[in-house]
Amino acid sequence: MPEAQPLENDVDPTLEADVFSRNCASRGILQNVTSRWGLLALVALLDGELRFNALRRRVDGVSERMLSVTLQSLERDGYVNREMLQAIPPRVEYSLTEMGRQVAQQLTTLIDLVEGHVPAVGDAREAYDGHHE
Amino acid sequence: MPEAQPLENDVDPTLEADVFSRNCASRGILQNVTSRWGLLALVALLDGELRFNALRRRVDGVSERMLSVTLQSLERDGYVNREMLQAIPPRVEYSLTEMGRQVAQQLTTLIDLVEGHVPAVGDAREAYDGHHE
Repeated sequence: MPEAQPLENDVDPTLEADVFSRNCASRGILQNVTSRWGLLALVALLDGELRFNALRRRVDGVSERMLSVTLQSLERDGYVNREMLQAIPPRVEYSLTEMGRQVAQQLTTLIDLVEGHVPAVGDAREAYDGHHE
Repeated sequence: MPEAQPLENDVDPTLEADVFSRNCASRGILQNVTSRWGLLALVALLDGELRFNALRRRVDGVSERMLSVTLQSLERDGYVNREMLQAIPPRVEYSLTEMGRQVAQQLTTLIDLVEGHVPAVGDAREAYDGHHE
């Protein structure tokens, strides 16, 4: 029996290194944090912990089901904490972990950049649609 | 007739300001640049222009159809240039615009961050799955 068993959590370093590889571990994680609702939920929590319904009001347009699925993925990946508070009725609060805070800050920078592009993207779309009618 | 007509491209500033609003212009743009394939295509082009097939090889796992749709969105939004080269057979090359370069660099920072999280996310998933069996 070999002495050094590979740890269950070991990630193949060749896969870990390249997000372009379809088997890369980081691809799935990236998809969870950049998904339509994942991204907005993370950024919403940057201002502090929120209960489910408050988060749902903040992330305008998300269904109860989609927000629930989204938060589950983010909790499972270690980006969001879910805390049950002893109260009647019981309350659940969501907050960012340290990793979640790092990603949310990065996403905020991306959002700021894209928000600055809105007028130029509007122009580009109009020009493109004019040429592709 | 009023003298000052609103420009067709005018974006409602109250919408532009808040990505959390479902009608916010930046939401759709953000979705195009953070989509599964949009994100990888942008980052792949950061190293320089690529032909369609080279890009498809780089973005491992994307179908011809999905890459085509993705590049069309990015071109329409002004993030990617599509250039037809006079050759036999005709060649098409894709490259980043200045806006595309800005977004791709930001996405690279996000990818680096998430790649650094891979081992911790592995641990978090294992702990989560252990509690939710």
